[in-house]
Amino acid sequence: MITRIRISSQGQGLLDITSRVQQVLQQASHQSGLCSLMIQHTSASLIIQENADPSVQRDLENWLNRLVSENDALYTHTMEGADDMPAHLKSVLTNTSLAIPYEDRRLCLGVWQAIYLWEHRYCAHEREIVIHLGE
Amino acid sequence: MITRIRISSQGQGLLDITSRVQQVLQQASHQSGLCSLMIQHTSASLIIQENADPSVQRDLENWLNRLVSENDALYTHTMEGADDMPAHLKSVLTNTSLAIPYEDRRLCLGVWQAIYLWEHRYCAHEREIVIHLGE
Amino acid sequence: MITRIRISSQGQGLLDITSRVQQVLQQASHQSGLCSLMIQHTSASLIIQENADPSVQRDLENWLNRLVSENDALYTHTMEGADDMPAHLKSVLTNTSLAIPYEDRRLCLGVWQAIYLWEHRYCAHEREIVIHLGE
Repeated sequence: MITRIRISSQGQGLLDITSRVQQVLQQASHQSGLCSLMIQHTSASLIIQENADPSVQRDLENWLNRLVSENDALYTHTMEGADDMPAHLKSVLTNTSLAIPYEDRRLCLGVWQAIYLWEHRYCAHEREIVIHLGE
Repeated sequence: MITRIRISSQGQGLLDITSRVQQVLQQASHQSGLCSLMIQHTSASLIIQENADPSVQRDLENWLNRLVSENDALYTHTMEGADDMPAHLKSVLTNTSLAIPYEDRRLCLGVWQAIYLWEHRYCAHEREIVIHLGE
Repeated sequence: MITRIRISSQGQGLLDITSRVQQVLQQASHQSGLCSLMIQHTSASLIIQENADPSVQRDLENWLNRLVSENDALYTHTMEGADDMPAHLKSVLTNTSLAIPYEDRRLCLGVWQAIYLWEHRYCAHEREIVIHLGE
């Protein structure tokens, strides 16, 4: 089964989408299987990370912003804004697709794990995620 | 269903393999499902990235070449050439496997997304990708 | 089918878990399909890498340790030890989930490929991996 969710990002940052994905599992035709997510964008990405302490998310973002700096003299792709080429690079270093097994229509995440959409652009965007539920 | 495609790389760089993967979907026994790709190498990798502006691909390559430099004094694995250890590192930072849902035998990619094989070695190589089409 | 394996890490480093995953395939109800792995932690991760020369693994580890340094003034998440925030970052730069096709109940890995659990913490940990075997 394939379905889609639309996430409204509010600009650069990590957004916990676990409950949105969990909701989709209620429609699954099987009790257990594999939940595969793919984000249809190349300037936003997906990660599974710790949801306990918000300082982890802040540090992830600051660290990646330092590694992939804006206005790098190396960039030739500059037409779409100072945050665009860094966004593509961050997308490459993280994930476009993720796969998570589920049982009893619940994601088999670890105790401290959550699924995040990572918006790499400054502005708010509507982001589309395609979800495949396999047996 | 499992099938394989062989891609001839022409040395370091990004190669759009979307149409090759799309072709494989014509053989799919189901109209929709999940297309999983795994590259059987550790010095080449897979990414989904923007296909609109070639400057994005050029910047991705130059940026990663700077981050993962050759002839780094840290390397002890130097027997297979100056480009080999950087190739393994680049493979780790990108992807060996990807999963993309498909509908009506078409990959559910975003408007600007393409699938790339990223060759990290200097020389041309024959690269094997195993593709699984699941329901 | 969903199953779990528990891996005892002996502190920071790469652990070849290929034979453990291969064992699980003996229970698969189908001869061929897709084997998906997800590690239920955010301070350890999964990669597929070269298993031929141990110097590759050593260089991978040293290189990533230099890129993601400890005691970085940027970190605000410092309560859980100097190795914790670097562990989250390394997990983000590598993989939480992987998917590998299998045929005749054997993983379709390349000749030099192995699956590694990458422990990013100093101490030994019990790490749980959820494995989904799909048709």
